[in-house]
Amino acid sequence: MKQILMMSSSRKGVSGYLEHAEDQVHAVLKGRAKRVLFVPYAGGITFSFDEYESRVKPSFERFGYELTSIHHHKDARAAVEQAEAVVVGGGNTFVLLDRMYNAGIVGLLRERLNAGMPYVGWSAGANVVCPTIRTTNDMPIVEPPTLKAIGVVPFQVNPHFISGKPSGHNGESREERLAEYLAINPDEGVVAIPEGVALHVHGDSATVLGEFDALHFRQGGAVDKIATGSTFALASI
Amino acid sequence: MKQILMMSSSRKGVSGYLEHAEDQVHAVLKGRAKRVLFVPYAGGITFSFDEYESRVKPSFERFGYELTSIHHHKDARAAVEQAEAVVVGGGNTFVLLDRMYNAGIVGLLRERLNAGMPYVGWSAGANVVCPTIRTTNDMPIVEPPTLKAIGVVPFQVNPHFISGKPSGHNGESREERLAEYLAINPDEGVVAIPEGVALHVHGDSATVLGEFDALHFRQGGAVDKIATGSTFALASI
Repeated sequence: MKQILMMSSSRKGVSGYLEHAEDQVHAVLKGRAKRVLFVPYAGGITFSFDEYESRVKPSFERFGYELTSIHHHKDARAAVEQAEAVVVGGGNTFVLLDRMYNAGIVGLLRERLNAGMPYVGWSAGANVVCPTIRTTNDMPIVEPPTLKAIGVVPFQVNPHFISGKPSGHNGESREERLAEYLAINPDEGVVAIPEGVALHVHGDSATVLGEFDALHFRQGGAVDKIATGSTFALASI
Repeated sequence: MKQILMMSSSRKGVSGYLEHAEDQVHAVLKGRAKRVLFVPYAGGITFSFDEYESRVKPSFERFGYELTSIHHHKDARAAVEQAEAVVVGGGNTFVLLDRMYNAGIVGLLRERLNAGMPYVGWSAGANVVCPTIRTTNDMPIVEPPTLKAIGVVPFQVNPHFISGKPSGHNGESREERLAEYLAINPDEGVVAIPEGVALHVHGDSATVLGEFDALHFRQGGAVDKIATGSTFALASI
């Protein structure tokens, strides 16, 4: 049974790194894994993979899990094949997906996640388990071979959801972007998750975790709240 | 000689649609074209091409130019071949580029712009004359065949430039995004243009138009102002 945690972000408001995440992480990993494989590919752009690992490792150790980054392994595919669980951090979604394709682990992750290997991802790490990365907020600083992603969750997620736009600035609001997404992709569904919120996908259902509600963006502009603590069928989106 | 206007946006702050743009548009079109071909492909997602045309047409008529949208022509390529000048409005850059490829006009625009046909574009319409659209701010709501674009300006432009990020929100600031862009693309150059600012490319040089300065983002994190009113060599970026 699938066990996937899609977190909006590594921080909630002004809280510390992964500080809000302990219960959310346990929901997926507790009793299922002791050691986790970290994928730092979304970062390591203006800092190193070692630095990224050293930022994430203490939190996971405090939660009770050993963490090693995939960049220490010579064979990335073998590392994923042998992993008890995989943790994918945020950064740039295009860079993450491009590096995952370069490492040859996209299809392999699809197989292992469908077979029940636990997965924890935040921000870009949440985008890549969707069918495509076409609801990322990131800049396309590299061009991956395709925007199709791991696709083990059957709908799109928009992390770091925030309503409205800065006053006097004329870019689109997030709501406008997602309305355009749905207008041009009429058969798809989008769930937006504010910072601090996560979706815990278990089998064919998902539960909203965190202090705020998730938002189901529907065709035609309606937005339904999915209350925190509630569980919905993946097929309902 | 190339005559290309890259405007940041259709509005500046709370001003009306294209209200700030008259002098900037004249810099490229005056004495060179009386009729312009409008390309509405970046919009027309949650509203129609007709609506988009009717929003833009009165401004250009007020400036003294007749405007007709390409969607009224059965043969988009023929329309571009016969155009005196082309105007490309904002919206979603991925949708714009995808529709330009579908219409078969990307290579044709490259030829005509290199040969001196005047071009006015704002927002997404400024992104597509760069080598790629990889410095757009937009959501990749569709997947174009490639992110390579018209490429008649030899550097990347970031429109709607705004400094910083909303407090308490943990997405990247625009500066961080552009620093990552340069870190992962060490041979490329980026010029950011705040709302209300435009670059007028004429031949091998460009002049900054508008009330504010443009910003040259350089490798290693330095940002140089390019003063409004000043002219720089395209090759200097």
